[in-house]
Amino acid sequence: MADTETSIDAQNELNDLRMSDEARPLYEHVKAFIRDVVEPMSEEFHRLGEGKTDIWSYAPGQLEALEAAKDEAKKQGLWNFFLPDADTGEGLKNLDYAYIAAELGKNSLASETMNCSAPDTGNMEVLERVGTPEQKEKWLKPLLNGEIRSAFAMTEPGLPSSDAKNVSMSAVLEGDEWVLNGEKYYISGAGDPRCRIMITMVKTSPDAEPNKQQSQILVPLPHPGVTIMGPMHVFGDPDAPHGHMHIKFENVRVPKENMLLGEGRGFEISQLRLGPGRIHHCMRSLGAAEKALDLMVRRGTTRSAFGRPLVKLGGNTEIISRARIEIEAMRMMVLKAAKAMDVLGNKEARVWISMVKAMVPERVCQIIDQAIQMHGATGVSQWTPLARMYANQRTLRLADGPDEVHHMVVGRHEIRKYEGGEEDPSLASVWRK
Amino acid sequence: MADTETSIDAQNELNDLRMSDEARPLYEHVKAFIRDVVEPMSEEFHRLGEGKTDIWSYAPGQLEALEAAKDEAKKQGLWNFFLPDADTGEGLKNLDYAYIAAELGKNSLASETMNCSAPDTGNMEVLERVGTPEQKEKWLKPLLNGEIRSAFAMTEPGLPSSDAKNVSMSAVLEGDEWVLNGEKYYISGAGDPRCRIMITMVKTSPDAEPNKQQSQILVPLPHPGVTIMGPMHVFGDPDAPHGHMHIKFENVRVPKENMLLGEGRGFEISQLRLGPGRIHHCMRSLGAAEKALDLMVRRGTTRSAFGRPLVKLGGNTEIISRARIEIEAMRMMVLKAAKAMDVLGNKEARVWISMVKAMVPERVCQIIDQAIQMHGATGVSQWTPLARMYANQRTLRLADGPDEVHHMVVGRHEIRKYEGGEEDPSLASVWRK
Amino acid sequence: MADTETSIDAQNELNDLRMSDEARPLYEHVKAFIRDVVEPMSEEFHRLGEGKTDIWSYAPGQLEALEAAKDEAKKQGLWNFFLPDADTGEGLKNLDYAYIAAELGKNSLASETMNCSAPDTGNMEVLERVGTPEQKEKWLKPLLNGEIRSAFAMTEPGLPSSDAKNVSMSAVLEGDEWVLNGEKYYISGAGDPRCRIMITMVKTSPDAEPNKQQSQILVPLPHPGVTIMGPMHVFGDPDAPHGHMHIKFENVRVPKENMLLGEGRGFEISQLRLGPGRIHHCMRSLGAAEKALDLMVRRGTTRSAFGRPLVKLGGNTEIISRARIEIEAMRMMVLKAAKAMDVLGNKEARVWISMVKAMVPERVCQIIDQAIQMHGATGVSQWTPLARMYANQRTLRLADGPDEVHHMVVGRHEIRKYEGGEEDPSLASVWRK
Amino acid sequence: MADTETSIDAQNELNDLRMSDEARPLYEHVKAFIRDVVEPMSEEFHRLGEGKTDIWSYAPGQLEALEAAKDEAKKQGLWNFFLPDADTGEGLKNLDYAYIAAELGKNSLASETMNCSAPDTGNMEVLERVGTPEQKEKWLKPLLNGEIRSAFAMTEPGLPSSDAKNVSMSAVLEGDEWVLNGEKYYISGAGDPRCRIMITMVKTSPDAEPNKQQSQILVPLPHPGVTIMGPMHVFGDPDAPHGHMHIKFENVRVPKENMLLGEGRGFEISQLRLGPGRIHHCMRSLGAAEKALDLMVRRGTTRSAFGRPLVKLGGNTEIISRARIEIEAMRMMVLKAAKAMDVLGNKEARVWISMVKAMVPERVCQIIDQAIQMHGATGVSQWTPLARMYANQRTLRLADGPDEVHHMVVGRHEIRKYEGGEEDPSLASVWRK
Repeated sequence: MADTETSIDAQNELNDLRMSDEARPLYEHVKAFIRDVVEPMSEEFHRLGEGKTDIWSYAPGQLEALEAAKDEAKKQGLWNFFLPDADTGEGLKNLDYAYIAAELGKNSLASETMNCSAPDTGNMEVLERVGTPEQKEKWLKPLLNGEIRSAFAMTEPGLPSSDAKNVSMSAVLEGDEWVLNGEKYYISGAGDPRCRIMITMVKTSPDAEPNKQQSQILVPLPHPGVTIMGPMHVFGDPDAPHGHMHIKFENVRVPKENMLLGEGRGFEISQLRLGPGRIHHCMRSLGAAEKALDLMVRRGTTRSAFGRPLVKLGGNTEIISRARIEIEAMRMMVLKAAKAMDVLGNKEARVWISMVKAMVPERVCQIIDQAIQMHGATGVSQWTPLARMYANQRTLRLADGPDEVHHMVVGRHEIRKYEGGEEDPSLASVWRK
Repeated sequence: MADTETSIDAQNELNDLRMSDEARPLYEHVKAFIRDVVEPMSEEFHRLGEGKTDIWSYAPGQLEALEAAKDEAKKQGLWNFFLPDADTGEGLKNLDYAYIAAELGKNSLASETMNCSAPDTGNMEVLERVGTPEQKEKWLKPLLNGEIRSAFAMTEPGLPSSDAKNVSMSAVLEGDEWVLNGEKYYISGAGDPRCRIMITMVKTSPDAEPNKQQSQILVPLPHPGVTIMGPMHVFGDPDAPHGHMHIKFENVRVPKENMLLGEGRGFEISQLRLGPGRIHHCMRSLGAAEKALDLMVRRGTTRSAFGRPLVKLGGNTEIISRARIEIEAMRMMVLKAAKAMDVLGNKEARVWISMVKAMVPERVCQIIDQAIQMHGATGVSQWTPLARMYANQRTLRLADGPDEVHHMVVGRHEIRKYEGGEEDPSLASVWRK
Repeated sequence: MADTETSIDAQNELNDLRMSDEARPLYEHVKAFIRDVVEPMSEEFHRLGEGKTDIWSYAPGQLEALEAAKDEAKKQGLWNFFLPDADTGEGLKNLDYAYIAAELGKNSLASETMNCSAPDTGNMEVLERVGTPEQKEKWLKPLLNGEIRSAFAMTEPGLPSSDAKNVSMSAVLEGDEWVLNGEKYYISGAGDPRCRIMITMVKTSPDAEPNKQQSQILVPLPHPGVTIMGPMHVFGDPDAPHGHMHIKFENVRVPKENMLLGEGRGFEISQLRLGPGRIHHCMRSLGAAEKALDLMVRRGTTRSAFGRPLVKLGGNTEIISRARIEIEAMRMMVLKAAKAMDVLGNKEARVWISMVKAMVPERVCQIIDQAIQMHGATGVSQWTPLARMYANQRTLRLADGPDEVHHMVVGRHEIRKYEGGEEDPSLASVWRK
Repeated sequence: MADTETSIDAQNELNDLRMSDEARPLYEHVKAFIRDVVEPMSEEFHRLGEGKTDIWSYAPGQLEALEAAKDEAKKQGLWNFFLPDADTGEGLKNLDYAYIAAELGKNSLASETMNCSAPDTGNMEVLERVGTPEQKEKWLKPLLNGEIRSAFAMTEPGLPSSDAKNVSMSAVLEGDEWVLNGEKYYISGAGDPRCRIMITMVKTSPDAEPNKQQSQILVPLPHPGVTIMGPMHVFGDPDAPHGHMHIKFENVRVPKENMLLGEGRGFEISQLRLGPGRIHHCMRSLGAAEKALDLMVRRGTTRSAFGRPLVKLGGNTEIISRARIEIEAMRMMVLKAAKAMDVLGNKEARVWISMVKAMVPERVCQIIDQAIQMHGATGVSQWTPLARMYANQRTLRLADGPDEVHHMVVGRHEIRKYEGGEEDPSLASVWRK
């Protein structure tokens, strides 16, 4: 996987990190759309939301503003372009999408406006690839049209998510129905009043081999037996109305047809979705790092203490330099991982993906932390976005596999070169989580 | 300051870090009182607060429970013992108080119950030492009785607090009144409905030399012209009802007699209060570190992934070891700084104080962060105290002088040994902040 | 300089990090030559040197073996290809040369065999660009033919090399001769008995503006008044017979014609040489990092303690993962800096060059240190190359501008974006060192 | 072990880190002797050694100078005072010895002059406690008289020393003789021409339980079958004439009576020696850290770049501050570990010992490294002691158990509190190494 072991030709291909000519018009179009449509709408959206009393709903006018922007995006053809190599999408390369994701990351409503926001993107991709015609008609179509939103229920409070074989929520077939019982948490997006469908990871086959025990089942929302217990806070923030919800399932009955792909194929499905999602997260993290560095230098050049601007005091110039170096290094690594997915496929590129997932959020946390320090007490307050940005990036070090698991993937891959042995199957399953 | 430059006798005295025999009965009494009185009361207090709708007030019954515990503390003689070397206090050594503070730090209501909570402690100490008989009668007496609470207004939003000469809020004498105009923020405790007096740092003498421009004036609360703009959040948390408030002063008029000690003596007063306060903070930080390590190991021994308890995976045992080593090293340093204050006095001990202030919160943040990582996503949520603990410790790296200023104090002290020169007066002022 | 401020087109060009098709045949040829000619010769060379008594000379047969390999390289046309865009060289792009340098770095004699070794490369480049026809005939020709070797004397023991304006060695014109007096140290290669010419940085114009006081003068070796005081050791190693020599100049007289380019143009000349040299160093550092990681994993998979291979103990797998991630990130950054030199020119690319110079040796030191730790006591001994590799990389953090200076270049560049001001001229001179 | 779990009385006792009144006269005497006798002798000793051609012998006059100082020490009663609680020693507490060791560490010949140098100290302690009268007469007596020197052979090149059960060198009883075969390395002091006895760890009982397989046998030097293969270099330095030797044992026959304590009791003996030795190492490391900080500040205040002294550039003041803070924290921890040995005994104090062994050399390496950086290229050369100091401290991170093993001891101790289980016996053996 590392350069050292691949031929110079393979290296060369992976080292061409340019955006393709084909993607350029879309890239420019997206930038223009964000500038001309999304940004004015965002201002209005947030203004409308200011007096809101119920944080779990939208204020009058908010959804209308959002829908108008979505209509305009559809009209302009900026819709669902996230879908790679698909009839319904633009067939974008991961590398090209990485450049575009960096732009989407600059405005928190941009992705949704063009129907490219998580977790809908991963859910649509899964439905598009493994859904039955009926499932597609019922769930994929309204998702592709931006009429509903969705969630993905995987993590459980009682089990370490670092090991993806750890699923305890059960689904048992009774007649024509699956009966689900268990508990999930950190279900992002399940707080949104428009959320209508949830792909749910369950254990259907406890006696099968470890990687064949899991299945993914479609659970419509709201649904009898599904209780939203409340939001998980992130450093005190409930992130309403999107929300990262804690949900109980008590004898939840769904039709047999809601199974995705087939019993025991839950892991297989997971493999489809996680690589690109991690790359997109990392691209957005880079956007956060750039923002933090911008705020850090801006503050440091405009505030003085002891008669000198803060940037000239102590080690601050070096801190800024190290942040810039880290950001550029991370950028190249993320682009290279995206390219590896394009050239090698998600499975072969998995070590590259783990490298950036282990590298990026940890270092971005550090850059944001240094920006906080440059702001003094204001840095932890609501007067800058830094504390919230920190909370988000800190959480990313735990989501989609904690840092430790990704280091395990990378380290074991390196070790395996010397052992000449087979890939550790338990590890593979981890990654597939 | 460092051992190397002092005689072996002086070293020896500083290295006796035992609690004194005189303080032992008080120490044992405090521990018993927390266990027998404070803890049951705390449970009730929090239960009563659960349904509260206005976060800025107390729920019915809460204050009554608190007052009952305070009465009991008074009755048992556990009252105001924080005051060092004073008629009104126990005359506790800083070293002895450090041991007791570590116990107080284990329950968030313990300090208040025994009338030993910040910022009242510092305010009472200042009033006790420099207050006029009238000021003492009017403000110190009810504070010593626990009838009112107080605040200390120093930091301003428009100026870096790292340089204590940076005060812009003005006070001008008009007739028999001082007229105050300006803005302060992070005024801890000013959100409490019982807060009645605020010691306010102002600039009275802009043409004096830099360290003689500031004064401290007593401002009763509520007061015409004093507007509480709102709370400063800390990682999203308003810390109600205590609060870290943002306050505007517009033509606030107070009698001439509300000046403390005299015009231009604001810095001088600050010197009295900051050393012990920083030591107390650091003792409480150690308590937080112990708590985080406890949660980390508890989680790591009870959760498994890949068939092994988390503590046995990857570098987790080493992380635990490094946390234990850091905690023990920090403990000895905090005790030594307290001892240095007892032996050398606050001024001579200032480098020891800066050493622990620069050392402790930064490392405690790291230990809490590692405890979060061991908990997975639960670690950042409201299901553990870790995220809130992190926010508190992270803020401490900015409060009472950011880390950088304390490293400057320590570093310059070391450098000055070689320069043979005088102490940098601007630095002295920083420390005195 | 950072991606964020350049157009997407400029970014795109910088992100194409592939080796060019034109350079491929040379790259393959160099690899084959090292494998077929250099490696067998190296073994003989080192065998011949084993019994040597005078470490500052070559053993009988050593130079003959080296010359034979050089003749073969010439015959095969693998000679002097380092010269960029020159009649005498291959006109290689910096990016292409970076790939080739990585191969050259794998055998310590490879560069010399193809007449591409430092400091001759920089000296030849300087002579080729600014030398007079007479200077070229006298010094460039035998250098290009590999008949003599050369040195570059810049650093002085009495002055911090971080500030390139710091030159104290004087040259005064007396009649038709320059008279040089002063002291230089760390003159790499001046210990080699074949070293015949030394480009020497001197101060000729103490009253000119800071950047115009320096000149570069050619001093033939040996020469009256030039005394080699001895070698500077690097972690105890004299690096004989190459050597990093300490040299005194006492009334050294050279003809007026030995001035390069003109009086006061010493800095201007330095600018030509340092960018590519730093990139080549960093490429070789990457080779060292790969070697260290290889030794680390090899040891860790073949040694056991407590019944498990070392790689599975404690945090070792994560250490290996972090090393791999760092190496890949550094590789991309070095390639990008080389590309920036090709696209933007040495001057515009200087921030990229400083980024990699500040990033690479520091991290490579850490990776080697971790490899040492994995080897136990053997790691610091002569039984592995690790201790020597560490010493080399540690020295690189001080040579060609210490880390701090390069962070200053990067940090100030970032800050300057916000200040809208001119480039700090003192900084520019630093970089040019 | 940590404060949290011990009673306040036990804490209090451990926190009295003063030198005892009884030890004060000896402490002052040692300081005076070093100043008045050892330092002048050292200068002459090193001057005499300058022209030496055989690095493995002493120059004429060197040993005579040393012996004269030893005679003077004996006459003054400064002899063998290292022996704790023994008839032959001063019965010094470990805490008191720690203060004295810090003084001994300031001159490289001081320990030997007073017959307190490693590895003789440990060897004498072992002989004093477990030797037979005959062994004492033959080996302990001349050691106590300073007539011969000794070595301790434990580490083997083919086995990781982190696991003390890893001994492969065999000893087989044939008639009245033990026959030893195997290989040892890093045998410190075995290069000294005066070295006459070597305590050798061997495997005598391969079928016993893991901790009972080892024995320690006395091997006189020189001896048939014992071949010194050469010195192990440490970062290129052979450390002659002391030396860290690589030794082969081929059919080495010694009398049955040379067994120490008894077959299978090798581990038991090791336990006696390692605690104090580690503390002494750490005290000397602190001396090295003070020296490095001194050189760092001295250089930084006397060199300028860009018109300011180096200490005022970039983060240098903070680097100095952090070094001072680390040094003071380490000092308190080393004293506390020494006190723990006095109060709790070596076995109970082992976690404290592992804490300081894991903490000190790693951080001292970092401080020395920063001092090197402040010196520029001079820092890695022979013109300062820094490179050699770095090599020594770096080696300490591997000797007497690598950092990782000590973190394992500390971490597992912490974890065990929660598991309620027995102590891991394999771990105990590690520590005893």
